[in-house]
Amino acid sequence: MEEGLLVVFTGNGKGKTTAALGMALRAAGHGMRVLFLQFIKGSRSYGELHAVQKLDCIEILPLGTGFTWQKESLEEDRQLARSGWEKAKEAIAGGAYGLIVLDELNYVLSYGLLPWEEVLEVLEHRPPGLHVVVTGRNAPKALISLADLATEMVPLKHPYHDRGLKAQRGIEY
Amino acid sequence: MEEGLLVVFTGNGKGKTTAALGMALRAAGHGMRVLFLQFIKGSRSYGELHAVQKLDCIEILPLGTGFTWQKESLEEDRQLARSGWEKAKEAIAGGAYGLIVLDELNYVLSYGLLPWEEVLEVLEHRPPGLHVVVTGRNAPKALISLADLATEMVPLKHPYHDRGLKAQRGIEY
Repeated sequence: MEEGLLVVFTGNGKGKTTAALGMALRAAGHGMRVLFLQFIKGSRSYGELHAVQKLDCIEILPLGTGFTWQKESLEEDRQLARSGWEKAKEAIAGGAYGLIVLDELNYVLSYGLLPWEEVLEVLEHRPPGLHVVVTGRNAPKALISLADLATEMVPLKHPYHDRGLKAQRGIEY
Repeated sequence: MEEGLLVVFTGNGKGKTTAALGMALRAAGHGMRVLFLQFIKGSRSYGELHAVQKLDCIEILPLGTGFTWQKESLEEDRQLARSGWEKAKEAIAGGAYGLIVLDELNYVLSYGLLPWEEVLEVLEHRPPGLHVVVTGRNAPKALISLADLATEMVPLKHPYHDRGLKAQRGIEY
């Protein structure tokens, strides 16, 4: 059995979730069972969901559509992150998948909604052969140290910042 | 009609072609007709091909499996790049697609196998509403200037460089 890789896509540039989606597609092409866990995605992920539903070997599970990112409701956000993380832990331990994407988990970690030490412990001791992809800004240094492959997406040009262009359906979400 | 974006994924890190593949999947999810032109991909793209064939709204066209990258056969490589570029120009002008990926075109340009001035001219005057994604290392500065959205993939960790690990089927190709 091949060694399962831990892959991290981080940085402020576009392409992190998109690269994870491409990796999921590629893995599915090799007959792997793939689970794509969206920690903080809401309705904008419709394009991803709709396309991936056509490709019936990737399962997408939106976890966090209710985050408020408000100090006054930090506890509710923590509970939402925790329930998502428990689903992720089940999937990681379950052995049913060849690739699991933890989309935007870094963002959740950087907001302190989950203890990254626990997350790293689970990722480090995942079943052999299981590939895991973690995306999101501000990946913890310890996660990058643990990763087999880590890429930082650096924005060179960004349509919002540079031209005030609105997000393009089908391209950015 | 929405404005077609020119998107560039460049840099030495992993995730450029993968992000283009994810973008193609997302666009297909929105019902766009997508063409994925692989300028220098060979057999390693099997995973992408196989997965994308299941998703019947993306067409993948491998163009360049015969590049030698040898000085002594520069002319043959130029002809191969030219024939691929002519197919790309047809697709861009044809109006049948909502998104066209020119995968590894930057690599071909940086090797001087195509005149980037001609490529930029065609991309700049493409039909309105057509999204184009260009990938590969060493994107010409003029292409980044023309792009609406450009991301540099910077390697933080790489399994070959850092651990001499072999490429993992289904994950990296």
